[in-house]
Amino acid sequence: MRVGIARERRSGERRVAATPDTVRQLAGLGLEVLVEHGAGEESGHSDASYEAAGADVVDALELGDLDVLLHVRPLEPETPARLRPGAVTIGLASPSTELPTVEALRDAGVTAFALELVPRISRAQSMDALTSQALVAGYRCVLEAAMRLPRFFPLYMTAAGTIPPAKVLVLGAGVAGLQAIGTAKRLGARVSANDVRAASADEVASMGGTFVHLDLDAADAGGGYAKELGADRAARQRQLLAPHVADADVLITTAAIPGRPAPLLVTAEMVAAMRPGAVVVDLAAESGGNVEGSVAGSDVAVPTADGGGMVTIVGMKDAASTMPGDASRLYAKNVANLLALMTHDGSVEPDFSDVVVVDACLTHDGEVRHPATADALEAV
Amino acid sequence: MRVGIARERRSGERRVAATPDTVRQLAGLGLEVLVEHGAGEESGHSDASYEAAGADVVDALELGDLDVLLHVRPLEPETPARLRPGAVTIGLASPSTELPTVEALRDAGVTAFALELVPRISRAQSMDALTSQALVAGYRCVLEAAMRLPRFFPLYMTAAGTIPPAKVLVLGAGVAGLQAIGTAKRLGARVSANDVRAASADEVASMGGTFVHLDLDAADAGGGYAKELGADRAARQRQLLAPHVADADVLITTAAIPGRPAPLLVTAEMVAAMRPGAVVVDLAAESGGNVEGSVAGSDVAVPTADGGGMVTIVGMKDAASTMPGDASRLYAKNVANLLALMTHDGSVEPDFSDVVVVDACLTHDGEVRHPATADALEAV
Repeated sequence: MRVGIARERRSGERRVAATPDTVRQLAGLGLEVLVEHGAGEESGHSDASYEAAGADVVDALELGDLDVLLHVRPLEPETPARLRPGAVTIGLASPSTELPTVEALRDAGVTAFALELVPRISRAQSMDALTSQALVAGYRCVLEAAMRLPRFFPLYMTAAGTIPPAKVLVLGAGVAGLQAIGTAKRLGARVSANDVRAASADEVASMGGTFVHLDLDAADAGGGYAKELGADRAARQRQLLAPHVADADVLITTAAIPGRPAPLLVTAEMVAAMRPGAVVVDLAAESGGNVEGSVAGSDVAVPTADGGGMVTIVGMKDAASTMPGDASRLYAKNVANLLALMTHDGSVEPDFSDVVVVDACLTHDGEVRHPATADALEAV
Repeated sequence: MRVGIARERRSGERRVAATPDTVRQLAGLGLEVLVEHGAGEESGHSDASYEAAGADVVDALELGDLDVLLHVRPLEPETPARLRPGAVTIGLASPSTELPTVEALRDAGVTAFALELVPRISRAQSMDALTSQALVAGYRCVLEAAMRLPRFFPLYMTAAGTIPPAKVLVLGAGVAGLQAIGTAKRLGARVSANDVRAASADEVASMGGTFVHLDLDAADAGGGYAKELGADRAARQRQLLAPHVADADVLITTAAIPGRPAPLLVTAEMVAAMRPGAVVVDLAAESGGNVEGSVAGSDVAVPTADGGGMVTIVGMKDAASTMPGDASRLYAKNVANLLALMTHDGSVEPDFSDVVVVDACLTHDGEVRHPATADALEAV
């Protein structure tokens, strides 16, 4: 069966859905692999290296001839109609924001798998692209901050005096946040972190960070509806975070809720209360932002309230694509592992009795199989 | 006596020669400190913070009224004539390349101290700006490399496979090189280094690097003049380094010889033999470059010999100014310590029986006091 890997076309996207390494894996499963000319260029893989791994490099993929299409970014809405009914696609699909593509996949009878929907169970960890790409993003946030901070991360004791370590505060301690904590710690900063999940305190400590405990019980005390309570709690959270933010040289925010706008953790007022030269990196900038005033893909300079200088807010965009080599290495492996799960004797046949296949499936046989996305389409 | 601190005017220069901290130190010595409006802006110090430390902030410095002028970059040739005879200047003077300014300082009867000339003895370590600024530059080189490398520095063991650590090679293991080794090591890379000084092997190891021993004895064996032998040895050095360079993901070169062009350590051919995506950071780009093809202040993309992609050569420029906060903190301290050495009872009186004063003095009483610079002026 024929597996195609296209060159990604979205501006800013530098990753690729297969590497020579995974081409070897797929060829070993008895699959025929076609790679579009230049697909791996930005991540360091030449056409020749794909050919050496057993792929055919072609000038343009004939989508109608493919049994499987592997991709990174969600497909364009016009792509599914060019695939044959029953063809399989595997990649990031961002179902909550790319509804027109979901409809097109459904209408074309494509069996589409969305990596965002891979269940977080141990057996599927090797296919979990959200985790692998968050690793890259978390590491990257720290580099972006270190490049812009007018001072060192580590402590230095020199003949001209002692330089204290930079203070880094990380809000949101999921995969990206924990990686940011670990990387900032490696670089020598003093790192603290907070997450609304109480269980994350141990994880933060395991990466070398100090967990910031917020007294949020008071927010639960009053009566009222869940939604109002939520808003109260969020406001109280910001109030309690304010002194920690003001004391940080670097603030990294990574609180994201898949398919929903990111929570606002830091107000403009909190940013302005930071020291001149402080740096804020908002990893959630693309999904609405954790920080008021952040703009995805841009640096925004905000005057400090004391008039002494500026705080820089970095709105992260395409974070994983900034390190396309290793990001693709992990992503391609995630994709290949999911495809391998569905491949038997050289034939790709998704087994719909497997929970990984069932959960990851977005569309199949003319239907939207992911309930939340089906509901969202109904609501349109 | 009046000490003035000007806003630096060279493009790219973001440091300042005094911080509120050193203003306090100088005021404590009985000196009156004048700071030009905005002088500390880029390094995070507001006019108000200087005033709070005891300085007078002025719109423009009246140079003729100053007893001492503190600066970062070498003065412009027209500045000394505006100072009064006998005035003291302290800062970087780059005497080998700024001969017109040296002449102007001499002709104006200025007592100029060049921080480059501070002797490397323990008592003067706290005044050694070359060392303090090289610390910043070495750290910065690693960040610049990490930002451009399409992969991680650290080892990661993930569910989608193991990512080996990046291989970093540092050539030149002085202060900047050792700091680059230490920083790359902190970030998790596998670091090796070479320096022509055999004694540096222990220093490299102390920072966590592996010393690359080159069999350079053969180059000494043949007869011939010192200069030819030098050229032979340099060629042999490049030949022996070539496989180490080809194997590196990141190459950082820091070999500089004060007042002379940097040695060419890496040829274009050696760069082209690196892997696609590899990054070269040439800290010596401003003084001629250790790497063939490097351009100060620019990134240069070089195709790899295997046709698989590009190597990026980063020509560093104003490295210390990229982190003006901590760079100024250390620099200002160096300057203040040298000035303090010459200040007695509120009066600045250089004691020419002190070897630090004698060595650091560039011009005094209408004469060029630094022999090599005096010779260079004779030769013009």
